[in-house]
Amino acid sequence: MKRLKVSNNVIRRLPRYLRKLDELTAQGITRVSSSELGQQLGLTPSQIRQDFSCFGEFGQQGYGYHVPALREQVASILGMDRHYCAILIGVGNIGHALIDNFCFSDWGFQLSAAFDVKPELIGTTFNKVPVMSMEDLPRYLDENQVDIAVLTVPKDAAVPVTQILTSHGVEAIWNFTNVELTEPNSSTIVENIHFSDSLLSLSYYVSERIDERNARAAREARKG
Amino acid sequence: MKRLKVSNNVIRRLPRYLRKLDELTAQGITRVSSSELGQQLGLTPSQIRQDFSCFGEFGQQGYGYHVPALREQVASILGMDRHYCAILIGVGNIGHALIDNFCFSDWGFQLSAAFDVKPELIGTTFNKVPVMSMEDLPRYLDENQVDIAVLTVPKDAAVPVTQILTSHGVEAIWNFTNVELTEPNSSTIVENIHFSDSLLSLSYYVSERIDERNARAAREARKG
Repeated sequence: MKRLKVSNNVIRRLPRYLRKLDELTAQGITRVSSSELGQQLGLTPSQIRQDFSCFGEFGQQGYGYHVPALREQVASILGMDRHYCAILIGVGNIGHALIDNFCFSDWGFQLSAAFDVKPELIGTTFNKVPVMSMEDLPRYLDENQVDIAVLTVPKDAAVPVTQILTSHGVEAIWNFTNVELTEPNSSTIVENIHFSDSLLSLSYYVSERIDERNARAAREARKG
Repeated sequence: MKRLKVSNNVIRRLPRYLRKLDELTAQGITRVSSSELGQQLGLTPSQIRQDFSCFGEFGQQGYGYHVPALREQVASILGMDRHYCAILIGVGNIGHALIDNFCFSDWGFQLSAAFDVKPELIGTTFNKVPVMSMEDLPRYLDENQVDIAVLTVPKDAAVPVTQILTSHGVEAIWNFTNVELTEPNSSTIVENIHFSDSLLSLSYYVSERIDERNARAAREARKG
């Protein structure tokens, strides 16, 4: 694919477009205009047209977008058709939950192995994913193409494990450890899961509602 | 607080501002301009000024923002100073991981109790949080002020548990179940954790790098 440099904000919206298009598909909707899409996503129609224009010509003036075609295009832009290979490091609570419940293959990924230090886990299998010893990680990385590593180790292990990964050619890390992994000029791609961003948004909406309710009550008290 | 209606996009940026301001504080930086902040966050200075202007007068023309003061203001806008009470439903892998590793109090929340159906968990304590029986949930909700519920139950339980929560006055749910919880016109505030959005962004960046590398190799092959 020929690539223009696309802003991070656009890239962050692509998975949301994908979810919305999947939702429309599930509802049996095959055509959508940029204004309908915008309304449902809280974006302006021109923003949406601009976002898609980064990747070529989508949709047809006056006819909107063909949902299945646009879905395929967004999926392809995101790399979902490339069948990346993932491994997971650290089969604690979060690691275990991801192996059992997160459907990597739905997003185009193959989760091929997990690694841990606990002897009682090594040699077992969760959801068809074998758990191997951390000692075998370097050799595994040398012998297999691994595109991304899911990092679900305890905080203390985050940096040393990252060093093993990067020194054996892993360029992308999905980081659940809340430890800042990238140094300036590092070429490793790190995507952090920030639970707190989500909780704080919720906190905002709760506060907004409470304040509105209190303001309404105060108005009514003045009237009465 | 007097509130204007603020767009979701602005609200979603607030936790990112908070993280950045915490990072600057940790680096001992006490003053930052909107252009420095913009550069570090991939936003334009005018975007940043516009975002903050939704909430009043921050910063001073030509002097930038005072980092600790702005941090306090953003935290307050997000409701972090309101000490909301949270409970968690479903002490499986993800629930357990959140109780043990996610520091609710850092974000202004108090996690007061967890609930599960498994007899072996009921009566135990994780990280000082008592696990109670699901049967006790309605009474607990009637007797205690609960502002948000963290929903980490299996998919099948998501809707019935939500019904118990909302019918006993819980208005906000932090939803880890990947089940769509809100019906049209529902007054419940639901914040979903979408792991896939994060993984797909990573997938995009990996694809971008591979394509750039291939394009470079092709150019060099043509030259050679």
